[in-house]
Amino acid sequence: MRLASYQGSNGAARSAVIVKQGGGDVVVDLNEASGGRLSASLFDVINAGDSALAEARRIAGSGAQGKPLGSVKLLAPIQRPGKLICIAGNFQKHIEEGGGQRVDKNVIVPKLFIKPSSSIIGPGDAVTLPPTSENSTDWELELAVVIGKRGRDIPYERALDYVVGYSVINDISGRSMDWNVAGRNPGGFDSFFDWLNGKWIDGFAAWGPWITTTDEVPNPSNMDMELKVNDKVWQKGNTGDMIFNFAEIISFASQFMTWEPGDVIASGTLDGTGDAAGVYLKAGDVQYGTIGHLGTLVTPVAARTSPIGLKWRA
Amino acid sequence: MRLASYQGSNGAARSAVIVKQGGGDVVVDLNEASGGRLSASLFDVINAGDSALAEARRIAGSGAQGKPLGSVKLLAPIQRPGKLICIAGNFQKHIEEGGGQRVDKNVIVPKLFIKPSSSIIGPGDAVTLPPTSENSTDWELELAVVIGKRGRDIPYERALDYVVGYSVINDISGRSMDWNVAGRNPGGFDSFFDWLNGKWIDGFAAWGPWITTTDEVPNPSNMDMELKVNDKVWQKGNTGDMIFNFAEIISFASQFMTWEPGDVIASGTLDGTGDAAGVYLKAGDVQYGTIGHLGTLVTPVAARTSPIGLKWRA
Repeated sequence: MRLASYQGSNGAARSAVIVKQGGGDVVVDLNEASGGRLSASLFDVINAGDSALAEARRIAGSGAQGKPLGSVKLLAPIQRPGKLICIAGNFQKHIEEGGGQRVDKNVIVPKLFIKPSSSIIGPGDAVTLPPTSENSTDWELELAVVIGKRGRDIPYERALDYVVGYSVINDISGRSMDWNVAGRNPGGFDSFFDWLNGKWIDGFAAWGPWITTTDEVPNPSNMDMELKVNDKVWQKGNTGDMIFNFAEIISFASQFMTWEPGDVIASGTLDGTGDAAGVYLKAGDVQYGTIGHLGTLVTPVAARTSPIGLKWRA
Repeated sequence: MRLASYQGSNGAARSAVIVKQGGGDVVVDLNEASGGRLSASLFDVINAGDSALAEARRIAGSGAQGKPLGSVKLLAPIQRPGKLICIAGNFQKHIEEGGGQRVDKNVIVPKLFIKPSSSIIGPGDAVTLPPTSENSTDWELELAVVIGKRGRDIPYERALDYVVGYSVINDISGRSMDWNVAGRNPGGFDSFFDWLNGKWIDGFAAWGPWITTTDEVPNPSNMDMELKVNDKVWQKGNTGDMIFNFAEIISFASQFMTWEPGDVIASGTLDGTGDAAGVYLKAGDVQYGTIGHLGTLVTPVAARTSPIGLKWRA
């Protein structure tokens, strides 16, 4: 089952399932098709748990009337997840292309960071080049899991039971931040905060086109990944090259925080980023991220509209 | 006006104003008192903007019947903000007590990080010692602002116009993380990720007891701060010692991300943390954080219940 959010006539997000009908994909509104039993918010549907998902699955199989996929605007599946967790350095070749050394996973732990919900955009939405890293904006194709059940202290063996589905994320990254501060000489922790803030920029978590539920993803550790910018393939690999797989990441983090329905975790990216080649996104580019049969996430790049050098202090 | 969330009879959060009535504080339910016009979600009330706040203010002044404050359980004002942003090293004496050197604010930028919504607990809620930092858990009293209006590229001079109110946060921190990984030798970026994860633990963002709106906070840069653990005063100072004030932090971050209603920013903490003295929280302790007339946030400490050394990898 493919769970999605699309833009309703009043502009607000509406929950849906996407089903094949008459040779094409159609979008079936879950709130309408359930007679109001299912929320118009996909977050709330997932949060309502197994019975709501069973109802959605029943609707997906019912032959209910849908809108042609091309006639609606899909949105990011969830607009305001409780947390969107990413992982740094989770593919050996990506670590190496960045100048790092291969790591021994037995003596390290996952390097987790958070992106804010204001960084989320949906399928087809353009990312606008930011003034703070206009000339260093880069792509990072990643597999995403969406959590379906609340849990803490989750053993590795049961970790994937907490996942409701999989999706595609482009963890867009500002590789260097220009703060326009005379005399600044960042080093040590400063450079880490710059790196972190370069992940938070508006539009830097492109997510979609939908969530494919776990029953249709037999092995998340064996899915082909490919990211193109315009006609050129930049990233090509397989989720099997993740250093820490999702079961490990979920279990690890559950030692100190509760996973909640709607939380999202991105896999970390593979090699083939622009930064390693000194190439960055520019206005007019279009990024295409595809993972297995989860669909293709399309993210155009728009020119900067914000001012450079806002006077931000007294 | 004091905006709050309290636990309704079905367990869900309900929006409220707290008003003085007959010599005591009472809690007036905004959804009930508005005849359903105002949402039961305080997030939604704030997101609805000025007209909703005007309606809440009218209710606060109407003499509407309320429940005695002691008869309800207050919750964190917002359960799932779009982002909860904190700032590291924003008081000179706190930097110094941690072994750092005083900074020149003219050549640095604010060091921002995010706490996940799963770390939020409300007034009176106990924080449970985590297995990952059972013996290094520390307090950090901070002033919080809550954003009331959506904005990007906000000039310093107008930044406080985006604030709806002020509150108290205890940015509880795990000073060292025990991952129970044989042979691990964290350094450089690893130690940063440990520091970051030590901020994310369940219950480590204690927040409350309510939000006092800006009209009742004439100068957020001159408010006394005091944190006690049991009978002992550990932190004592004034928000005027913030290196970057809220106008600067809001304006700075607005260069790269959109502020949204319900977003929260914490001020950074002053000196007097336990870590500097080698003293940490233990089960049975009670923390009391007071800032100006914003109320006292009470946070008891509960014993660890989670296992140590969960086997989290294959």
